[in-house]
Amino acid sequence: MSHTTPLSSGNGYGFNSRAPLKIAIIGGGLVGSLAALSFARRGHEVHLYEYREDIRNAELVQGRSINLALSQRGRKALAEVDLEQEVLATAIPMRGRMLHDIKGNRTVVLYDPCTHQCLYSVGRKYLNEVLLNAGEKYANIHRHFEHKLNYVNLSEGRMEFKRMQTKEVVEDFADLVVGCDGAFSSVRQQLVKKPGFNYSQEYIEHGYLELCIPAKNGEFQMPENYLHIWPRDEFMMIALPNQDKSFTVTLSMPFKVFATIQTTADLLKFFHKYYADAVPLIGEERLIKDFFKTRPQHLVSIKCYPYHYGSKALVLGDAAHAMVPYYGQGLNAGMEDCTQLMSLFNQTSLSTAEVLQQFTELRWRDAHAICDLAMYNYVEMRDLTKRASFRCRKWLDTLLFRWFPSAWVPLYNSVSFSSMPYSKCIANRKWQDKLLNNVLISTVLAVIAIIIAIYFGVF
Amino acid sequence: MSHTTPLSSGNGYGFNSRAPLKIAIIGGGLVGSLAALSFARRGHEVHLYEYREDIRNAELVQGRSINLALSQRGRKALAEVDLEQEVLATAIPMRGRMLHDIKGNRTVVLYDPCTHQCLYSVGRKYLNEVLLNAGEKYANIHRHFEHKLNYVNLSEGRMEFKRMQTKEVVEDFADLVVGCDGAFSSVRQQLVKKPGFNYSQEYIEHGYLELCIPAKNGEFQMPENYLHIWPRDEFMMIALPNQDKSFTVTLSMPFKVFATIQTTADLLKFFHKYYADAVPLIGEERLIKDFFKTRPQHLVSIKCYPYHYGSKALVLGDAAHAMVPYYGQGLNAGMEDCTQLMSLFNQTSLSTAEVLQQFTELRWRDAHAICDLAMYNYVEMRDLTKRASFRCRKWLDTLLFRWFPSAWVPLYNSVSFSSMPYSKCIANRKWQDKLLNNVLISTVLAVIAIIIAIYFGVF
Repeated sequence: MSHTTPLSSGNGYGFNSRAPLKIAIIGGGLVGSLAALSFARRGHEVHLYEYREDIRNAELVQGRSINLALSQRGRKALAEVDLEQEVLATAIPMRGRMLHDIKGNRTVVLYDPCTHQCLYSVGRKYLNEVLLNAGEKYANIHRHFEHKLNYVNLSEGRMEFKRMQTKEVVEDFADLVVGCDGAFSSVRQQLVKKPGFNYSQEYIEHGYLELCIPAKNGEFQMPENYLHIWPRDEFMMIALPNQDKSFTVTLSMPFKVFATIQTTADLLKFFHKYYADAVPLIGEERLIKDFFKTRPQHLVSIKCYPYHYGSKALVLGDAAHAMVPYYGQGLNAGMEDCTQLMSLFNQTSLSTAEVLQQFTELRWRDAHAICDLAMYNYVEMRDLTKRASFRCRKWLDTLLFRWFPSAWVPLYNSVSFSSMPYSKCIANRKWQDKLLNNVLISTVLAVIAIIIAIYFGVF
Repeated sequence: MSHTTPLSSGNGYGFNSRAPLKIAIIGGGLVGSLAALSFARRGHEVHLYEYREDIRNAELVQGRSINLALSQRGRKALAEVDLEQEVLATAIPMRGRMLHDIKGNRTVVLYDPCTHQCLYSVGRKYLNEVLLNAGEKYANIHRHFEHKLNYVNLSEGRMEFKRMQTKEVVEDFADLVVGCDGAFSSVRQQLVKKPGFNYSQEYIEHGYLELCIPAKNGEFQMPENYLHIWPRDEFMMIALPNQDKSFTVTLSMPFKVFATIQTTADLLKFFHKYYADAVPLIGEERLIKDFFKTRPQHLVSIKCYPYHYGSKALVLGDAAHAMVPYYGQGLNAGMEDCTQLMSLFNQTSLSTAEVLQQFTELRWRDAHAICDLAMYNYVEMRDLTKRASFRCRKWLDTLLFRWFPSAWVPLYNSVSFSSMPYSKCIANRKWQDKLLNNVLISTVLAVIAIIIAIYFGVF
């Protein structure tokens, strides 16, 4: 149902004096539907193209809906389109990590024992639906589902789509083409061909596979307010709670380890050895069925520069900076792209080309930084969480955070619970490391001095 | 003119027992035509596809033929197809760098004062012709010029070409598709879409533009047996001699500096300031004409992994590892790909898939290493060559090389005048740096000890 475009939105942006553009958004996922909404609220003519069917009509498979960890940056972006409360109302707060050791012992490590901030587990489908539904209020959003982008001429803003149902090819033109079409973006594929466009894609040696811990008697089988982790050095498993009281379980390990599991017996032996406590929760029958149903999927980290092409094209979200999923920041970073882009679009003194240029310059260091952090956190989650030195540092960080909440924000907290630029989060952590090292060295030297003093009978 | 395939080639390889494959080579440039020749000598059915016309029928513009620095690795590859002597016969040896300072003073830095090895300036067109002509002897090479690859299905080895003249689309199948189609390879474009394929393209901030120092009275205007360099910190110019007694001059500088030169007056002011000695050699009129004729070109460094897809596809040369041109190793590395690939194809116990897999594993570290070295040498050529510390190190390297010719091979010499794997060249240099640092520290400590000893009257 479409209404007329509100001339003034309720969040204080108002209808700015920038001339309305015809904007084509490629990809109607989370970032695409948020971008469509954000542009529509500013009076632009938005065409949202998505190659799949409308997700609101798609079937939801129980326990298999991929869930996401929503944190500060995503919440902020939702707040700016007045949807934060609606999303949080049904999200499941996760206050910390619940670590499962190989014997089945569980330990809780809170994300933020001081100010009690937490992550929120939200269903991808649900979030997408909320964003699409919110867009229905705007007559200036035109949705085109089952339209696959065949080709885009970036200089002309000319696009060719194939209608998935009829195979018919249709053409459209836009002043600005915004690629929100994910890690394997077709829009970016054209950017990659432009001289001066830097690009890298790096696959990790680990694949992932999704399993499910179903609800039992209508209840969660594990405490639901945690992100569950089974760290096992070279591999690991995590589980996030779903609205339907199931958990979506993600098993990550090197492809070569996946390759060693060929039979039901291999699988059960492996699970009983490494994830014994999870076997009764998943159920052997379901484990076997889900494990062998699909092949492990690849994980890729993508960086590029710039994100735009003149005044005609832009990539956002995974299309600009896909990352491995181990910091839970993929969605949050993509949504923060929208926040930052819109803050530039609000500056009416800037031309579209200037907005896009400034967006690239504002964003690239932080996008590269979060890609690097996600890669680092993969090591932390499967390995460091088990180490005493990591827990000791965590304890020290928490203590200092409690004493100096504005001066000492631990890395994880600055990334997940603040809007500090990602690159600054890293710089901040480096500064903390340096300080702690200096304190450690000074302490050791002081202790040596005291021992010498005692030895020579000064005291 | 085609003859029948010789059953046994003259270089000792013979016709091995590997079943002949139908091999499609995409790109008839230097690496493509060398690969075609090498496969044909082993009895394979080779289809060489090139989107341009036959270079042997193309017009040569005087002084504008791009020349290349042929060194050890390229020579070795040519020797293996019995063409080294033919190529060297007309190549111009370059014994060292001739540095032009801002006042026009010239200094010679020999590449190898000990064993007198040198680089050879060869014309790209000439070398390509020699390779294509050599291929004419083999009835099992089928040349298809003006065929542009539209699409390749790597799993099926199915290719679609557009005939440039008729626009007709033709299809072909091959057991193995070898992409020798340069930095912007269409074959690699399909590899990039495969999960697990790592790829990066990095453009540098400097562009380049070609100029010409023509022959004068039928003679070279500068000593011809040198690679001429005008190092100017942020930018530089180089010149290589051509057969027709001209020099091809390459001006490299940041795009932003190019952008400051808009008028004839800007250009002449710039050249008289930085390259005063070159102005009369190029001639003002020709300088103005050539400079404004084309826009500066981009330079890109490309790395990827793996180089193959199953038993069906492979990329070689710039398609696998394009590099910035400052080590003069692009051609040599591409030709060395052929040497190494053929040494694996000679092992008849290996299946095609194993050959390709082993080629990737054998080659990727070295290909990445030479891309990095080329980037490093850019800094060296425009900056370090002017510094006293660089010249001092060069002198020390030469001295040690003279004393210990097998134990102390300087970096440049190991890269250009040996077949040491590129990654080992870097490791070797690191070992040398460490040793020299240790010697330096020991010397300083010894001097201090002597001074103290003298001070306290030990002597």
